[in-house]
Amino acid sequence: METPGLVEAHTHLDKTFWGIGWQRHMAGPSLIDKIETERRKRRDLGLDPAQQAARLAAQMIGLGTTHIRSHVDVDTEVGLAGIEGVMAARARLRDVVDIEIVAFPQSGLLVRPGTFELLDRAMTLGAEVVGGLDPCAIDNDPKGHLDAIFALAQKYGRPIDIHLHELGEMGAFSMELIVERTRALGMQGKVAISHAYCLGMPDASHARRLIEELAKERIAILTTGPAASPAPPVKACTDAGVVVSGGSDGVRDSWNPYGTGDMLERAMLIGLRNKFRRDEEIELALDVCTYGGAKMMAVENYGLSVGCAADFVLLPGETVVEAVVSRPADRMVFKRGRLVAQDGKLVGS
Amino acid sequence: METPGLVEAHTHLDKTFWGIGWQRHMAGPSLIDKIETERRKRRDLGLDPAQQAARLAAQMIGLGTTHIRSHVDVDTEVGLAGIEGVMAARARLRDVVDIEIVAFPQSGLLVRPGTFELLDRAMTLGAEVVGGLDPCAIDNDPKGHLDAIFALAQKYGRPIDIHLHELGEMGAFSMELIVERTRALGMQGKVAISHAYCLGMPDASHARRLIEELAKERIAILTTGPAASPAPPVKACTDAGVVVSGGSDGVRDSWNPYGTGDMLERAMLIGLRNKFRRDEEIELALDVCTYGGAKMMAVENYGLSVGCAADFVLLPGETVVEAVVSRPADRMVFKRGRLVAQDGKLVGS
Repeated sequence: METPGLVEAHTHLDKTFWGIGWQRHMAGPSLIDKIETERRKRRDLGLDPAQQAARLAAQMIGLGTTHIRSHVDVDTEVGLAGIEGVMAARARLRDVVDIEIVAFPQSGLLVRPGTFELLDRAMTLGAEVVGGLDPCAIDNDPKGHLDAIFALAQKYGRPIDIHLHELGEMGAFSMELIVERTRALGMQGKVAISHAYCLGMPDASHARRLIEELAKERIAILTTGPAASPAPPVKACTDAGVVVSGGSDGVRDSWNPYGTGDMLERAMLIGLRNKFRRDEEIELALDVCTYGGAKMMAVENYGLSVGCAADFVLLPGETVVEAVVSRPADRMVFKRGRLVAQDGKLVGS
Repeated sequence: METPGLVEAHTHLDKTFWGIGWQRHMAGPSLIDKIETERRKRRDLGLDPAQQAARLAAQMIGLGTTHIRSHVDVDTEVGLAGIEGVMAARARLRDVVDIEIVAFPQSGLLVRPGTFELLDRAMTLGAEVVGGLDPCAIDNDPKGHLDAIFALAQKYGRPIDIHLHELGEMGAFSMELIVERTRALGMQGKVAISHAYCLGMPDASHARRLIEELAKERIAILTTGPAASPAPPVKACTDAGVVVSGGSDGVRDSWNPYGTGDMLERAMLIGLRNKFRRDEEIELALDVCTYGGAKMMAVENYGLSVGCAADFVLLPGETVVEAVVSRPADRMVFKRGRLVAQDGKLVGS
């Protein structure tokens, strides 16, 4: 059977350890510890973001991904090296995958003076999307953080994609501030919230009100189907009209030792997290990893209809649902009508 | 690298749809609806439990499993056909895998008169373990249900393995009744509780008290690492001395459309569910799927030391942790020192 090209709507190509041998996972559980461990590890390993991005992207393409949105770290230590690296990988792979770059202030924005200016330069250099991160929990200044990134998005007429790990009422508070700015600035359809854990808050009626607000302002969300965090209820979101996309997040990096970059596996994980068992539910999990991501990224001519870009995957299985649960290795991946990968490997590599 | 043979400590070999083409998932979300759907589906398909069990077991062996505990339905409709079928598959596969059979009253025990007598006959026929199921939620008579299965276990000097999906305080109540009987009857080390969702209850101090009781009576638990249910906290359990095993539960059956029978994937899912990221944590997730299951099933001579039974798996990867996150397909599986499967297929098949 066939599926449109898989859409990896949230990863971090610049900082994967893919292809450099096994790295023991050292980080403690807190967010700040992860950020600090990453900074140290990056210094120690001296990895080339261009090479790492190309390695992971090739792995993803081999498994059927035809479109990638990558958040790329921008901070006062790494500067724009990550952005330049992923741009180099993108240029190298432009015939086999579309890569969209989010300029991402991983280490905080206001807490690290100089970061805003770097984000601004990233947008002139070639990043397409303005990133953001936990405006309360990391920057301790939700108004300041959000005003800054929305101003940047306005300046360049670009979309926003904000990491929001904040839980419960804190996350809901930040989300409401995002909704308010989206409405005030007329940015409907141009804002995405990644993770959106707070939509899995215990107060389901509050979560429902938030979901309605997201639908009204056409704010998309991204889920990884996290097994150990509160998570947005996918079906409730799509039923309300919210665009839901799927992503691997980090793959084999200092944040996350797991992952193969397989978006069929991601669809399975999203299905498991959402207790999807019926065929139409598992189809929805795959839609999240195909059409949902494509909508969030405003991909033109996406899909299997006549006139579409012919980005698709052929794989064994009677139905797409069987493909999600079995995740066969023998896949043929087509980009703009041309076979670009087979059995996990780029054609010609 | 190598790992001791993977231990599938909880599956349902008798009722998988493995190998018969894709079956649409029809069941609604409730437990009772699943039980009724299964009964209907079983009648419609007329599957042979021996053939189905052998098919799924072969798939599991191909992926490195050397020991299986299978719950097998016993009820007034299917009678002992499932038990006889899995026994036939076991005989056929005895050189390549060890299969332990739990006589399992899937449709309820007291609510279906005649089931107890069938369970009794299953134990004389060749089942090794007495099964049970949600004494409050299914049988509506926790005392009656537990007294019955403990009596049967006592009669045959056999262990018990009880499915306990009951959540929160209800599950805790049932668990306390199980602990009480284990203590009173001196059945320490011979009782297992599968799923044990209630240990993931919001009241963590209550859960901690339950875990201490389980440790004291040497009651093992089984987890699938469920992404969408409360789940036992694996590290808190093993730290307290509770044996924790891992299992796939149903694989491609009317309960669960997911699953490949891969216990390395199960270790990954258990790791994800428990937020395990550090190498030693992911090693623990694999231990659950190897040593934990072997302990629960009282497998003799299990492990990689001199004098052990030489049930093991060779697979690529620098460390077992890498094997869990990458789940390579090229595995060599040895049973009692003999190569029995390679690259997912039984040798000679």
